[in-house]
Amino acid sequence: MQAKLRHDADIILRQAIQHVLPDTAVRQTLTGRTFPGRVILLAVGKAAWQMAKAAADCLGTQLTCGIVITKYGHVPGPLPRIECYEAGHPIPDAHSFAATEAAIQAVQGLHEKDTVVFLLSGGGSALFEKPKIPGEELQNITRQLMACGADIVEVNTIRKRLSCVKGGQLAHLCAPAHVLSIILSDILGDPLDMIASGPTVADTSTCEQALAIAEKYSLKMSAAAHACLQQETPKSLSGTETYVNGSVKELCAGAAQACRALGYEPFILTDRLSCQAKEAGRFLGSIARTHCMDGKRLAFIAGGETVVLLTGQGLGGRNQELALAAAREISGIANVCVFSAGSDGTDGPTDAAGGYADGDTEEALRMAGRTIDEVLRDNDAYHALEKTNGLLFTGPTGTNVNDVAVVLITPPDAP
Amino acid sequence: MQAKLRHDADIILRQAIQHVLPDTAVRQTLTGRTFPGRVILLAVGKAAWQMAKAAADCLGTQLTCGIVITKYGHVPGPLPRIECYEAGHPIPDAHSFAATEAAIQAVQGLHEKDTVVFLLSGGGSALFEKPKIPGEELQNITRQLMACGADIVEVNTIRKRLSCVKGGQLAHLCAPAHVLSIILSDILGDPLDMIASGPTVADTSTCEQALAIAEKYSLKMSAAAHACLQQETPKSLSGTETYVNGSVKELCAGAAQACRALGYEPFILTDRLSCQAKEAGRFLGSIARTHCMDGKRLAFIAGGETVVLLTGQGLGGRNQELALAAAREISGIANVCVFSAGSDGTDGPTDAAGGYADGDTEEALRMAGRTIDEVLRDNDAYHALEKTNGLLFTGPTGTNVNDVAVVLITPPDAP
Repeated sequence: MQAKLRHDADIILRQAIQHVLPDTAVRQTLTGRTFPGRVILLAVGKAAWQMAKAAADCLGTQLTCGIVITKYGHVPGPLPRIECYEAGHPIPDAHSFAATEAAIQAVQGLHEKDTVVFLLSGGGSALFEKPKIPGEELQNITRQLMACGADIVEVNTIRKRLSCVKGGQLAHLCAPAHVLSIILSDILGDPLDMIASGPTVADTSTCEQALAIAEKYSLKMSAAAHACLQQETPKSLSGTETYVNGSVKELCAGAAQACRALGYEPFILTDRLSCQAKEAGRFLGSIARTHCMDGKRLAFIAGGETVVLLTGQGLGGRNQELALAAAREISGIANVCVFSAGSDGTDGPTDAAGGYADGDTEEALRMAGRTIDEVLRDNDAYHALEKTNGLLFTGPTGTNVNDVAVVLITPPDAP
Repeated sequence: MQAKLRHDADIILRQAIQHVLPDTAVRQTLTGRTFPGRVILLAVGKAAWQMAKAAADCLGTQLTCGIVITKYGHVPGPLPRIECYEAGHPIPDAHSFAATEAAIQAVQGLHEKDTVVFLLSGGGSALFEKPKIPGEELQNITRQLMACGADIVEVNTIRKRLSCVKGGQLAHLCAPAHVLSIILSDILGDPLDMIASGPTVADTSTCEQALAIAEKYSLKMSAAAHACLQQETPKSLSGTETYVNGSVKELCAGAAQACRALGYEPFILTDRLSCQAKEAGRFLGSIARTHCMDGKRLAFIAGGETVVLLTGQGLGGRNQELALAAAREISGIANVCVFSAGSDGTDGPTDAAGGYADGDTEEALRMAGRTIDEVLRDNDAYHALEKTNGLLFTGPTGTNVNDVAVVLITPPDAP
């Protein structure tokens, strides 16, 4: 029974990730669509090249021209009618500014019938930038914010106002053309205007908040920069259409679809998990233990991003800790498993995507001379799961939309 | 909307507890039953008197005679045809032994058609005891086990073998009469033979385990006591019938029933929750946040007993911490709440049964000058929830079957 569970886990993980690959997201939105006028492609972020390639395939001869802006080393080859730029991340550099300028030029002089297809993935905030102030000062302010521990929301609230393109301003530059955005999200809960500071979506942050952040962290800036903080960003936009295809919500939906195809009745508990990894594992394990005698094929799915409490010097990642902590709760139960993995294929500083545990895991670990408590205290889930055949490998996936954890339950008498 | 949620929470909590009250458990099993021969009642534990009273009501003139053995101060009045004894807890004393001897006498000389109704609640392990060794030595060995940190399973494995009634031995003493046991459980997962060391159920612990425990803790005992550890307990029993009516499973079922009556579609996630209280709260909060826009009236139920990580000097309990930790996840959402309470009506060293949080809780706390993080670090949930009208009070309930936590979700546009 465990071999079947493990087999199903591998299939579900692969299909869930497939569901949120950058090209899947693009294909889902663009396949079969026709556009009345010119089509200008702008792709920005770590997955820009893959997204642009998929879009070029879908658009075919409808594509007028395009620009890709991605990280150094992220352009594997040329694309038809598309110029590819590589630039600085996480701190924007001169290449970021030059590439962004080229993008702005490409969307000038469009008509109402024209369309800008804007493809956004993680890292876009640094890669896509035309500052209103000298590049050096923007970099300096960004560094100040990072050094004083400002969170991503605070950083973006400031940067939107020091930029010509962020906080909905790119959409203004494209007017009167239609703007179709496809966004791969790596922020829990998908606050659209926070993903790469939302170049094509109405901004929800305010000048008042920006000024409060500048004061809170005693940011050093020129009078010109300070003046920018007082200029409001677009609060509503017309002619825009936005899809968030690659979010953790979609990762969960992909897992649910794969579970259903394998005969499990799926239930998505949450797509916003953010608690401690091992406690989430214990909670999921307790769900498995409670429902293991229901006599049904069930799948409980939890997406999000847990955190690890570091108490040791071992090797592991949050998904591996989650699975190992669940192992104790389901120990000895033959018909359940719990697994968890990162959609980017990398869990913590390891080569595994995540971890898998079933009713045999605790005993297998004990035979190898270790206990779950001790391993979790050492944060050494990788070496423990290595011994129980509990590491999940996918290799780098080309996407990053948080993690997914799954409880699988089969009837106790299933083959 | 919050007032309605709070109102529903109070009703659900009251009805869930009602569902597991000692007398409810007894009435559910005995109502309408008739017995062919004599009926001898034995009630043991903290709730023995309430259970015996309910049984006497149900049995009426069918009751031949009975014995109640409970804690000092737990006999509020006489019961017809029943002798009530008060005795030592958690360490058995001379009154425990005398009362148990009376109980053994009462079940002597029964026939096959006769029935022993055995009512067991928490605390039975100490209250119901006839040692095979001198009482002083039994007390001494029990104290040694407690002092060296032995867990309840280890303590009971030893005590079963030093006793004439534990580990299924009472059922042997009642033979050939039928033994009908009604058990109020306070142990997660209901291992029947561990509840008060299972006087009427087949024992799963072995002599081998008992000897290993004696060695592990270097227990000091007489040769006679050591010889007892080598006498095996009954491994199978005939003519017994056992109901676990008051378990945490029933507490969850009671909550689900109350939710359904109020129009919520209930889903029992787990009845074996055992992770950290605040992490369970965050998990449940993330479920609320994920499903708050489903447009349905939903209830997610989790039973069990969480643990608190002590990092501060404040006042609170695990249920209050759970609710407060959930408050952050659901902050600002008008149509959800999370509450959690102990079925005994006492959460930690406080006069509250548990805690309640909704979308307004975090803001109310902020207005009172405190943050959730800081309160949780201080383990001071009581004083925080006091300020947000988030304490749940039931008073002592007369039962103790762990805790229940509930997420309630109404449609966002519900009145």
